[in-house]
Formats: sequence, structure tokens, C-alpha cells
Amino acid sequence: MGSEAIVGIGVLATMDDREGTGAGLMALHRDAAVVVEDGRIAWIGPSSQTPETDTRYDAAGAAMIPGFVDSHTHAVFGGDRAAEFDARMSGAPYSAGGIRSTVAATRAATSDELTARTQHLLDEALRQGTTTVEIKSGYGLDVKTERRLLEVAGRFTDEVTFLGAHVVAPEMTSRRAEYVDLVAGPMLAEAAPLARWIDVFCEDGAFDVEETRRILAAGRDAGLGLRVHANQLTQSGAAGLGVELGAASIDHCTFLSDKDVDALAASDTVATFVPGAEFSTRQPYPRIERLREASVTWAIASDCNPGSSFTTSMPFCIALAVRDMGMTPSEAIRAATLGGAQALRRTDVGRIAVGARADLVLLDAPDPVHLAYRPGVPLVSRVWRDGVVATRWEHVAG
Amino acid sequence: MGSEAIVGIGVLATMDDREGTGAGLMALHRDAAVVVEDGRIAWIGPSSQTPETDTRYDAAGAAMIPGFVDSHTHAVFGGDRAAEFDARMSGAPYSAGGIRSTVAATRAATSDELTARTQHLLDEALRQGTTTVEIKSGYGLDVKTERRLLEVAGRFTDEVTFLGAHVVAPEMTSRRAEYVDLVAGPMLAEAAPLARWIDVFCEDGAFDVEETRRILAAGRDAGLGLRVHANQLTQSGAAGLGVELGAASIDHCTFLSDKDVDALAASDTVATFVPGAEFSTRQPYPRIERLREASVTWAIASDCNPGSSFTTSMPFCIALAVRDMGMTPSEAIRAATLGGAQALRRTDVGRIAVGARADLVLLDAPDPVHLAYRPGVPLVSRVWRDGVVATRWEHVAG
Ligand SMILES: [Zn+2]
Ligand SMILES: [Zn+2]
Repeated sequence: MGSEAIVGIGVLATMDDREGTGAGLMALHRDAAVVVEDGRIAWIGPSSQTPETDTRYDAAGAAMIPGFVDSHTHAVFGGDRAAEFDARMSGAPYSAGGIRSTVAATRAATSDELTARTQHLLDEALRQGTTTVEIKSGYGLDVKTERRLLEVAGRFTDEVTFLGAHVVAPEMTSRRAEYVDLVAGPMLAEAAPLARWIDVFCEDGAFDVEETRRILAAGRDAGLGLRVHANQLTQSGAAGLGVELGAASIDHCTFLSDKDVDALAASDTVATFVPGAEFSTRQPYPRIERLREASVTWAIASDCNPGSSFTTSMPFCIALAVRDMGMTPSEAIRAATLGGAQALRRTDVGRIAVGARADLVLLDAPDPVHLAYRPGVPLVSRVWRDGVVATRWEHVAG
Repeated sequence: MGSEAIVGIGVLATMDDREGTGAGLMALHRDAAVVVEDGRIAWIGPSSQTPETDTRYDAAGAAMIPGFVDSHTHAVFGGDRAAEFDARMSGAPYSAGGIRSTVAATRAATSDELTARTQHLLDEALRQGTTTVEIKSGYGLDVKTERRLLEVAGRFTDEVTFLGAHVVAPEMTSRRAEYVDLVAGPMLAEAAPLARWIDVFCEDGAFDVEETRRILAAGRDAGLGLRVHANQLTQSGAAGLGVELGAASIDHCTFLSDKDVDALAASDTVATFVPGAEFSTRQPYPRIERLREASVTWAIASDCNPGSSFTTSMPFCIALAVRDMGMTPSEAIRAATLGGAQALRRTDVGRIAVGARADLVLLDAPDPVHLAYRPGVPLVSRVWRDGVVATRWEHVAG
């Protein structure tokens, strides 16, 4: 491969403010260049001082940001739910029950079919600037299918999450204690070697706080990191539980109490927002003012799934977070890059820094603010992933 | 060119319900094919019965819709207002005064620079499925620059609108009667041969109802069709005036009275919504329930402009109209195609019918509902414009 210099970057948003450079929340450099070597960033500096490299690409004044880190997706599933969406948008409310139709379609799909669908979605995400993705299981809900989903997810990313506790399996709804035993026992035993994380959907219609505690504790004992679907529809106590157990991230956070915000502020747990879900289910959006005041770290993710947020577009999520959650453009872009990395406890992605992975997104825009200023417009013009220009998603270890 | 058959269309949304086929609001055909010849649609029918043609393209089950008709844009301007947007999203309110900064940048730009910018925006719009576009002047506000803007717009479309009455020119704010005289007199005389339409921004901070009446009447006398920016920020009386004068469309319609809705229902005037403007200015969205009940014809447009809606994405506007205005997906897609054509009083675009212009959009989706179901995702995979696959916007007479 050799070394490549990307020169003439009009505005480089590094997110790398560890040195307190005073360059703002996005840690902007102007008229900058980046040198890439062996998949890593080897040098950052003024374009006029770029060192010699094997090849050179001229950004012609465009803005560059780190690749998006989408820390919450359900990108392995069969079927779609366009008809359910159509009905809901004509007046029917959203219910988690719809998950069961995806479970049926997913169980019926071969692993090759599922792999092809996921490839298609991740190619789509990549073209929109996503370079790191987390993928959850959770549409199998039996040992065999959950295992298959984790295997498929592992073909695309190392950020694989076991979500056997998405909802109670449809054939076991009258035996929920037995299903919790299954998830925390034999299903987890099969899943643990295939996953980095365990997650529970803690909500009315899914799992309560005590069930969630038990499943997460079992996952932790099996060596998995913790994540929680928390406080999407109510102030359920799930957020507090996640913080208490040291979860890397509590996700959704549509309804947080002041106590939850204080607990987050005193912890290493990231609050991950998924405004695409509020968009597609017509729920009210969460607001970030209290979190800003308390200096809570937050992230934005797509929640890509066929029921409540069938988008792969991190730029769309940024535009929503600015329009409807009260984030400034800088806060939202940071949350979709560095924030996502923090939610996955990764330091090698989500920022543009020497030694970090060379995951770089060039925009057809002079400033990253255009990601919010130009909503719905595909502004990503070129993506480097692991140091090379990428148009098809491949597995990169990390 | 010869004839081309597009076969294997999974769902063809023709919008052509003139014969009352009972195929729903989008007039859907399944497993369909379309034959294109000399830029026009020559045949529509079951894919299995496709006649012989010179070439053939297999849609492989994807959905097809008519090209979007974006009936309201301000796509000729200099500069951008990303910094103003950034400030507004950090708390400052939207004011029409920002228009003046675009006027300064536009006057300072050469016609070649303006042409290149517009080309870039329309190429972007085309990739997102727009095949017919209206373009307004209105960032010149002096005779010479308004004339230049109309000439630039005319390089791209025949749907050119004279909007000298966008705001009072900054150098004439203390002489507004004189500015109205200028617009309705010498400026209109220069503009009329270059435009099809005249439009007035009737709103606090722009022009009042009586000024609007005078300018529109002068435009009508000069042979132009009428459009009005009406009721964006208040129930101003502009909507009623537009209907009274026989405007083809009244645009924005954020605040309509019941009387306005009744007047629209009894007229040929289309109500054009621009939800991108409500998105980018954090205004409340209009609702369509009363219009639906009264059988008013409505359209969706982008309002593409650097101040209050810097999007070219009709799919984004569709997703907003469904999420926040109460439209069903079918209503929104129809409004962005057939509705836009009706707002421009065009019968040759906005529908897929024998004899209509072959402006066709293939989606990377099995159903057009995905345009709302998959918000923010660039789903347009292939665009035929005037019968040929297009990736660069060129002028097509119409
Ligand atoms: Zn989720
Ligand atoms: Zn406008």
C-alpha cells in the first residue's frame, strides 16, 4: 500500500481535544493534511508542510471528519416491515410486538441470505460515512438462531452483541421465567465466545429491571461487556441499573430522571441516543440540556432495525439531534464519531489522531456543519476505512 | 436512441389514476414494465407482455416512481449561510433578514459562478430523483442582477419564476413604495420575457397583502402565471389573495385558516408544503387533516435555499411530511410527484402514463413506501430523465 497524503483539507474535524488545544468541540484544524500508512494515521499538520509520501490525494478544500461509529444496530434480520410502518403512519401506535414478525422471517432465512442482507445494509452505511459498527443479535430468540445471528454479525465486525433478551421468544410467552433461564444459561453459554457485549431490552413488553439485572450479571460473569436498552418508553429504572452495573452504554434514554442524569455524570457509562427511533415511531425526542449541564458523555447511533428505525444514515441522525434534541451541530457530529467510540470503549476510532485507525470521511461540503445544515442530502464523497478507499464493507479487526 | 424496455418492476407507482382503476392513491401496478421511446413513455403493462424493443433493462423487482417534481426552489445564489445556521441551532431565532447576506454574495458572484453552483445543486437533486425543477430569482433585488439570475435559471429549466419581491432591496429599505414600483414596473418588464411565473414573499418583513396584490396583478398583465409565498409565519391573508387571483400554487401554508382551506377546496390553486423549511427553522409543521377532509390538492417541494431549507432531497421532505404533517406515505409520494406537477400546471410530468415524459426513478427498495420507512437513506438507484439514464442535469424543454 505505501503511504498516502490527503492534502488540502479545508476544515479537518479531528475530535482529538485531548491536549486541550482550544480548537473547539470538534477540535478543528484548517488547511490541513493527513498522512495514512499501514491503515493508521501517521501524521497530521498544515497542508503546506505535508511530508513526502508514495501517493497524494487533493481534498480541494473539502471538510473531513472521522468515520462515524454507529454503536447500536440490529443489522442482521430477515424480511422487512414496510406494511407495518405504512399502517402505523396511518394511525396505529408502535408496539414492540412487531418484533415477532421479524423473528419469524429471520428464523426462516438461511445464514447466507442473512449475510447478504447485512452486507447490503453495511455497504449502504459505509457510503454514508460509517466505518465502525456494532451489531446485535435478538431476532432469533432460540439457541440455534441466536448463534447463527452472532456468527453472521461476526463476519462484519468484532463489536458483536448478544441480545437474546430482546423480547421473550413467541413460543415461550407463557413461560417467561423459563425463557430468562434459557438466555442467562445455555443460550449465553453458546453466545459468549461469539460476542463482545451483552444487551437487554428493559421495557414494558420486554424484560423488567430484575430480569435485566440477572441476565446482565450472567453476561458479565461470562466475560461480556454490558449495554442496556433503557428508558425508551418510560422512566423504568433500567438506566440506573445500567450505571450501577458499569454498563459501557445505556441506549435510547428517551425518558431520564434527574437521578439518572446525576448517576451518569458520576460514571463511565455513555448515554446513547437513537433519534431515528423517535422519528420513525413518532415518539417525543429526548433533550440533552440536563446532560450538557451535568457533563454527561453522550453518543448518537442509528438503531438500524426493520421495526422502529430502518435507517443506516448517521448524517440523518445528526440532523435530527440538532433539530429536535437541542444539540449544536458540533455536539451532534462529535456524538456520532467520538461519542460512539466511547460507547464501545474504543480509543482507536472516532477521532483523527496519530496512531488511530485511518477511518476518514471526506464531505462534499466546506464545513462539517453542513451535515446538519443540509439535511437529507448525501454529502459523503469519499471514505477511507482502515487506510484504504472503501465502497464495500469488509471485516476489519478491532 | 431507439426504444428501451424497463422490465421486472416489482411495484410501479404511476400516480395515473385518471381512469379510476382502484389501484390506490399511487395507482400501483405490480410485476410491470415500461417502454420508453423518443423521451416519452410508449407502453405500460405486465412485465410478461413487454413488446420487443431495441434495448432492455431488468429492474429485478425494484420499485419505480415518476421523477420528483420540485415546484419550489431558490437554487441560484452565491455564498452559503452555514455560520448563521450554526448560530440559530445554538439558540438564535430565524429571521428573514438573513436573506440580505445572500443578496450581497449573489450580486458579487459572476453568472458563470452562479451557473456552476446551480449545476452542482441540480446534479445532487437529480441523483436523489428530481427530474423537474422550478427555480426562482430573488437574491438580486436590482434590475441587472434579477435579470442575470433569471438567465442562469433558464439554462436549467423552463419553470423560471421572477421573485423580485422576495424582500425589499437592502439599499431601498427606507423607500419601500419606490421598490414596489420598481418590481412592478421596470424590473418586471425585463423579467417577463425570461420567466413563466411571478411570485411574492407575502409576510411580515417582506411584502404586505396590498403590495402583493399589486405586484401579482402586474405580473399577470405581463403574461406570467402566479405563485405566492403565503402564510409561512402567520395567517396573513396571502393564501386567500392567491386563491382569489387564481395562483397556480400558494406555498408554505404553515398557518392556514379554515376559510383558506375552504377557498383552496373551491379553486384550482394547489397548496404547496415545504417541510424542509419547518425542519431547518424549528417552526411547527403544518398538518394536512383539514385539507384531506376538504379534498384540497397539495404538493411537497424542497424550498431549496441557503437560509431556511438547504436541502435538495425530495425523499427527505417526504419522510418529514409523513412523520410530522400527518400524510400517509402514499399521500406524500404523490404530493412530491403528481402534486408538484399540478402546482406547475404540467400534465406531462409527475405521472407514469403513455405519452408522458419518460422521467423515471428506480429505487433500491421493493416498495415506494421505503422512501418514508428508510429516512435519510439514499434509495434512488437509477434515474431516467427525458428517456435517458441521467447523472448530470441538462436543460430539457417543457
Ligand atoms: Zn435497539
Ligand atoms: Zn421559498
